[in-house]
Amino acid sequence: MKRFLRNDLDAMPQRYRAAFVNSLSGFKSASVIGTCDLRENTNLCIVSSVVHIGSNPPLMGFVMRPPSVTRDTYENLIQTGHFTINHVAIEWVAQAHQTSARYPRELSEFEATGFTPEWVEGFAAPAVKESRLRMGLRLVNDMPIEQNGTRLIIGEIAWTDVPKEVVLEDGYVDIEAIGTATISGLDSYHTTQRLSRYAYAKPDKGAQPL
Amino acid sequence: MKRFLRNDLDAMPQRYRAAFVNSLSGFKSASVIGTCDLRENTNLCIVSSVVHIGSNPPLMGFVMRPPSVTRDTYENLIQTGHFTINHVAIEWVAQAHQTSARYPRELSEFEATGFTPEWVEGFAAPAVKESRLRMGLRLVNDMPIEQNGTRLIIGEIAWTDVPKEVVLEDGYVDIEAIGTATISGLDSYHTTQRLSRYAYAKPDKGAQPL
Repeated sequence: MKRFLRNDLDAMPQRYRAAFVNSLSGFKSASVIGTCDLRENTNLCIVSSVVHIGSNPPLMGFVMRPPSVTRDTYENLIQTGHFTINHVAIEWVAQAHQTSARYPRELSEFEATGFTPEWVEGFAAPAVKESRLRMGLRLVNDMPIEQNGTRLIIGEIAWTDVPKEVVLEDGYVDIEAIGTATISGLDSYHTTQRLSRYAYAKPDKGAQPL
Repeated sequence: MKRFLRNDLDAMPQRYRAAFVNSLSGFKSASVIGTCDLRENTNLCIVSSVVHIGSNPPLMGFVMRPPSVTRDTYENLIQTGHFTINHVAIEWVAQAHQTSARYPRELSEFEATGFTPEWVEGFAAPAVKESRLRMGLRLVNDMPIEQNGTRLIIGEIAWTDVPKEVVLEDGYVDIEAIGTATISGLDSYHTTQRLSRYAYAKPDKGAQPL
């Protein structure tokens, strides 16, 4: 083991440090976020920071880099109050990664990277037709993080499309069966293989595989 | 695809809904959080909500359930201002899952579940000796999320222990090589297999494997 102190991190060149620190948080959600402006000009960008906030009400969040960097997505979701989260599948990780390129504002990443917008009636953000698990969210909170100017964006799930056959009897959705990818660091994509599920843990016995 | 509307989610039985909604966020970080009180009584609990907040300064966050539920960890980190994040390895996912059982307050999960506390000088929270990637963080923000009473806890990395041989030349840390696990839903543990890394995306060409 090598110990890195705070000073060591601060002394790393910027890109090296970004790659290093981004790896430390463990495996992450691979999702593309869909938004549009009031004229339905669409935008799509990959994020690895989707996090479950709660089930009742059903809330998801993601961390957004400073609006000076992520421009369109932030402006769109503030304008419309809507966004979609779409799972990235292992067959199209390259295409999903490509949505992080800085395309000119007037060019939609849907078009540039070959995804198909899917519109849900009454919902002002495009989903990704190619995705096998997608959801539409209404913006309910936009929390500035004072330490670095990022924001925690929180949405309430308005609807979600899930293949029926992967919803198990206890409500668990088998996202491995639909080929959802996972990310490590800034740019590494992985497939998964289940080790086990475990029952709700109780103090009087060890972990019980389900 | 089956579409679930907000009403359908609200109508689900509580545990079913928790399993369902927890699956929608994609694959998640598998980490155990170490804390202690002012008398160095230790606590350890598994979390799947660790999220990268930024690299400069190096910041990590996690979502904490209402303090009425997660009791000890929250009180400890407020008291000491310190906590550790330790990657869960695929060989000991069962043991890590077991830290979620509600042990009596006076019993440490380290002892109950068989982990070894590791102390770093001057740092008031125990790390997990068995973990192959661990870090110590100083609490810098505790943000209440008004929608459901959870909190986003943010820490600044004070130190991190990483096996030297998995830090690649560009700073990326190969967490798959050290057997870091990933979680889906509330209770499913997975190993990973790399598909590819991709270069920083540029608008004028498609994704380039590294």
